[in-house]
Amino acid sequence: MSRRTAVAVAFVLACGSAAADEGMWLPAQLPEIADSLRAAGYQGDPAELADLTRAPLNAVVRVGGGTGAFVSPEGLVLTNHHVALGVVQYNSGEGRDLIETGYVAADRHAELPANPDYRVLVTTGFENVTGRVLAEAQGRTGRDYYDAVDRASKALVAECEAQGDVRCSVETLFHGRDFYRVTQLELRDIRLVYAPPRGIGNYGDEIDNFMWPRHSGDFTLLRAYVGPDGRPADPSADNVPYAPPSHLRLARDGLAEGDFAMLAGYPGITYRHRTAAEFDEQVNWRLPAQVEVLDALIATIEAAGAGNADARTRYASQLASLKNGSKRFTGELEGLLRSDAVRERAEDERGMLAAADGTDLAAIRALQASIAAASAQRERDLLVGYLGSQTQLLRAALTLERLRMESARPDAERERGYQARDHGLIEGQLRQVQRRYAPEVETALLRTLLTRYQRLPDAQRLPELDAAFGRTPEALDAVLARLYGGTALGTEAERLARFEAARAGRGMEPDPLLDLAAALTPALQRLEDARKAREGEQLRLRPAYMHALVAWRRQQGRAVYPDANRTLRVSYGRVESLAPRDAVRYAPLTRVEGIVEKNTGKAPFDAPQPLLDAIAARRFGDYVEPAIGSVPVNFLTNLDTTGGNSGSPVLNARGELVGLNFDSNWESVSASWKFDPRYKRAIHVDMRYMRWLMDEVYPAPHLLRELGVPAAR
Amino acid sequence: MSRRTAVAVAFVLACGSAAADEGMWLPAQLPEIADSLRAAGYQGDPAELADLTRAPLNAVVRVGGGTGAFVSPEGLVLTNHHVALGVVQYNSGEGRDLIETGYVAADRHAELPANPDYRVLVTTGFENVTGRVLAEAQGRTGRDYYDAVDRASKALVAECEAQGDVRCSVETLFHGRDFYRVTQLELRDIRLVYAPPRGIGNYGDEIDNFMWPRHSGDFTLLRAYVGPDGRPADPSADNVPYAPPSHLRLARDGLAEGDFAMLAGYPGITYRHRTAAEFDEQVNWRLPAQVEVLDALIATIEAAGAGNADARTRYASQLASLKNGSKRFTGELEGLLRSDAVRERAEDERGMLAAADGTDLAAIRALQASIAAASAQRERDLLVGYLGSQTQLLRAALTLERLRMESARPDAERERGYQARDHGLIEGQLRQVQRRYAPEVETALLRTLLTRYQRLPDAQRLPELDAAFGRTPEALDAVLARLYGGTALGTEAERLARFEAARAGRGMEPDPLLDLAAALTPALQRLEDARKAREGEQLRLRPAYMHALVAWRRQQGRAVYPDANRTLRVSYGRVESLAPRDAVRYAPLTRVEGIVEKNTGKAPFDAPQPLLDAIAARRFGDYVEPAIGSVPVNFLTNLDTTGGNSGSPVLNARGELVGLNFDSNWESVSASWKFDPRYKRAIHVDMRYMRWLMDEVYPAPHLLRELGVPAAR
Repeated sequence: MSRRTAVAVAFVLACGSAAADEGMWLPAQLPEIADSLRAAGYQGDPAELADLTRAPLNAVVRVGGGTGAFVSPEGLVLTNHHVALGVVQYNSGEGRDLIETGYVAADRHAELPANPDYRVLVTTGFENVTGRVLAEAQGRTGRDYYDAVDRASKALVAECEAQGDVRCSVETLFHGRDFYRVTQLELRDIRLVYAPPRGIGNYGDEIDNFMWPRHSGDFTLLRAYVGPDGRPADPSADNVPYAPPSHLRLARDGLAEGDFAMLAGYPGITYRHRTAAEFDEQVNWRLPAQVEVLDALIATIEAAGAGNADARTRYASQLASLKNGSKRFTGELEGLLRSDAVRERAEDERGMLAAADGTDLAAIRALQASIAAASAQRERDLLVGYLGSQTQLLRAALTLERLRMESARPDAERERGYQARDHGLIEGQLRQVQRRYAPEVETALLRTLLTRYQRLPDAQRLPELDAAFGRTPEALDAVLARLYGGTALGTEAERLARFEAARAGRGMEPDPLLDLAAALTPALQRLEDARKAREGEQLRLRPAYMHALVAWRRQQGRAVYPDANRTLRVSYGRVESLAPRDAVRYAPLTRVEGIVEKNTGKAPFDAPQPLLDAIAARRFGDYVEPAIGSVPVNFLTNLDTTGGNSGSPVLNARGELVGLNFDSNWESVSASWKFDPRYKRAIHVDMRYMRWLMDEVYPAPHLLRELGVPAAR
Repeated sequence: MSRRTAVAVAFVLACGSAAADEGMWLPAQLPEIADSLRAAGYQGDPAELADLTRAPLNAVVRVGGGTGAFVSPEGLVLTNHHVALGVVQYNSGEGRDLIETGYVAADRHAELPANPDYRVLVTTGFENVTGRVLAEAQGRTGRDYYDAVDRASKALVAECEAQGDVRCSVETLFHGRDFYRVTQLELRDIRLVYAPPRGIGNYGDEIDNFMWPRHSGDFTLLRAYVGPDGRPADPSADNVPYAPPSHLRLARDGLAEGDFAMLAGYPGITYRHRTAAEFDEQVNWRLPAQVEVLDALIATIEAAGAGNADARTRYASQLASLKNGSKRFTGELEGLLRSDAVRERAEDERGMLAAADGTDLAAIRALQASIAAASAQRERDLLVGYLGSQTQLLRAALTLERLRMESARPDAERERGYQARDHGLIEGQLRQVQRRYAPEVETALLRTLLTRYQRLPDAQRLPELDAAFGRTPEALDAVLARLYGGTALGTEAERLARFEAARAGRGMEPDPLLDLAAALTPALQRLEDARKAREGEQLRLRPAYMHALVAWRRQQGRAVYPDANRTLRVSYGRVESLAPRDAVRYAPLTRVEGIVEKNTGKAPFDAPQPLLDAIAARRFGDYVEPAIGSVPVNFLTNLDTTGGNSGSPVLNARGELVGLNFDSNWESVSASWKFDPRYKRAIHVDMRYMRWLMDEVYPAPHLLRELGVPAAR
């Protein structure tokens, strides 16, 4: 494996500070926006940030579903408490609840193993493979284009992973314009070093989630181990701490309002470069439609669960998830309306199209036609999607039927999710059904979805679904009564017996729900085929849109960053207060006294007594921020983040570690589509709070020394 | 009736500004705290505020359950929308919903009648009657003291009301130290002149209740009419507008942060001069105990209502009221804990007792003993109180039995609430039962209360209750099954038939619940007798406590205002922002743009289109406050208010009308016990918002002219 990969990225020049606070920049773009970066206050050399495989950015790693960073030469990894929660949970059990109590490893021997599938991924390669990915796709369209890109990507991944110890992927930037192969060293012996108690690490829990002001110590320290040869290894007592290629240094002091801040991490997915039509559809149809259906499903579960405590228990998790979804979609909708995103995007696109050249224009018109065509069946696609995701027994039947079909082919040709390596996951899901299913609730959910489906115009309905479920609510009721009265899939042993047959590609013992699944599958496969064809076509056409957009932004003097896609990005800005509503202003730093204010003694506002005692006695040591007269807990910046940025290190103007990103404010839920500088904020743990806890409250002087900062004891 | 009553109030001298922002001062106290008032910014002569029967304070009147003020020489009264809501509702009905649309009377003929029992009360006398009230009580104790005060007060009221057209009452200040007879002219022809639509007057409704920032146009204009002879008269077309003895003048400009403000009104009840033991009991027992019982009752109704839609409907109102109670008690508890009220009061009282003289001390010890004695049965008294207030059928049975007993005596000797003039109210309540009762919920509520009762120690239980309900949950279940299986009181006709008998003092048709009521009544009457004896004793003893407290405050250089008791009070302070929690700061003025931010188009956030249009077009005329660059909607002061202050006029340093009080912030729910200057704020309608609405949005130029302010049209 090569530690160094030639990175040749030619993006667009940056001019001025037009979009200084917005942007999930690729490291390679930073030299181009060096003036803006320096004007914002960065004191280092932007060129040093250009290569994500060199220091300091190669200290920033993927951990769990989020981000982390090496913070010592001996493999200490700092990430969020909520990102490492599974590790803490894995070490809890009968008589030992480390989530509740927290954990401080007294020495290396006391460091506890992570769950076996937990990984730290160190990015070691980021290689432009656009030519190879598109070589075969050129001249093709639609599904053929999709398949060609898919084949080339799989080949690139297989070739890369053949070297061993690495996980590889091919990612597109600018929606089909550029393709990069990402190589990540896969460290698989990870151990728990320091976790605060739940009453600190998750103080406020769901109630404070998305909220500011915040008072959470959402951090945990892990350590990566490798074999004695320095290469990734399975967990073993013989392993030694990993020596990372670089690590971040903790700042001695912290930030106050207005100070420069930057952040690096692996943001998930954003939609900021979508077309005006897609913005319009998101705001004026998709979000309201999703909220409507989710709220109907919520009401269905609540009605079916009233007077049925057993059903309420079984559906508690699904209900919570539906409510969370409805709340998030509502927040996104509110935010996009507040920011007037549809109108602004439409005006912006009009300007872009007026300036675009003829070749781009032709492709853009084709792209717009493809998007419009997909919209013709959007109501149906939404409802059919929920048929699978919001049911238990029907989903099990559909999975079994698809597994049976795929298993008839050679493993490599099977659809992702149905290969041999996926069997464990499928079996686990089939076992889970038992705890989350009640027939009267599932039929009620299906009635909610399918009566809506029945009301769709003819052009959107599918013959197989009409035949299976009937055309009227009365017919549907009879079908559901027959299906759920007759199915044996409600019994775990019956499901697992059929799973054994299906994974072997054999026919399964008959069942009314499996008959239904067999009848529906051709229709569902047609939808899947159409989706892939559409994705292929849009992958082919969007580069023209991006080309026109980049040219248009150049005219405006603005650089363009690609939409986030889980690749390493850098954002910069400053510590900034928030005025979210008329007459409301939130200060950008919270104080430990705010913990006491919120403390009720009951979860999630039950701060541990040692913390309350230290605050009451003002045993603050050297950790006081003069501007607020206390130890800062969390702080707010205008940095550009989204899901996946959890655990991102926040650096000061000298590149030193001052904070740990862990959340955003409620007003910025819509930032996945539009960054509105008035409302978009990121929420971080102040490193002074972490250091104070480690020095004064749950002391770990040996770790502070390893982190290179003073310890009072 | 004399318009002028000699007011001889000798309170305590005021020194300096120690408590400049706290205080519900009697007008007569204002000359004594003149220095503080001037230091705070008042530009008028404090002596002019000393007599509440002269201008400007005689412009401040009681309206409905709140406060209002005359604002024109022709009887225009300004009060809150929520205080006048009944009047607007009275004029709505089939095809006309004035609550929804608002109302602007084009001229005097278009002014609409108020409901017949609606009154405006103008205070015309405030007379010290301490000597007469206590003449007969001297030398007595306990129940005899109570009865003597009660008899003397009734005689003073009867003598006063004999003159006609007035409503009189005797009120005690300083808890039994001073007694005043209040004489109020009773205006009974009140008409609706101007009300904004619900989407303005009640914008935000329950969601925004107690909240800041606020955006409510909570005002309404009424007009008082009198007979052609100038005396109060029943509604009649011959009546003429009342010429008030004085009226408030609207300011041309408004206030900004830091400006002086004062307010006059009729605050309800406060407990600030209660003893340390009473503070302790309130925080450490009563509020938590009330929350515990209310939450148990809430859970009981919710459990009984699950799967029973009919029961849910019947108990929706009781449930809402219980939740509101629990929320308020919780807020009060939080506030008192946040302010460390118990410790502060205890330290303060210790200092006071150390400085008190021997005579006072003896009485204070006796007072403390009386308070402690009452506490011995507090758990029982709380539960027994809820037995009556939280049931429907049991309450009806207790009422009927008591009515039967009282009706056997001459009307004048009957207990208040059971006299002939109360029969209409009782009948109405007996009819209401039907809509709010389900036997399975009432028995569940009784089970919740009575199983708690059964667990009380022997000393707290009552033989009659033990005999009636048994000593175990099993026995109780059997009793409840028999009672509610056998009672006929669930039928309206059966209740009303017994009402006819009871009001005539006759025996009623037998019923298991009436038998129960007859069995319980002797115990309940013993509790009532004990309460009156205790109240008499405390009325006798508290003046010594007040005497010691006033002397102690004098040592501290502070004046003492009496606890609020619905008499006219004045508070002064300034426009002030609020920092209720760590990192949160609320500005003291809201802007009309905030209405648009909150607007969802759905009640309670559905601002009317004409308002939204005027804001969008910034048709702001001369109503912009430069400090916020917009029309102010509501503003925040540190004025000292409580329930009953709704509709209080807010005046500037020159005594001109700048605001209309309508609410407090959530953090100040506990101010009935303790004024904490960090958190206590009052919320007012800015008169510029009212004038702008009347000028630009729902124009009433003729009314603006009557109010003496410019009108653009």
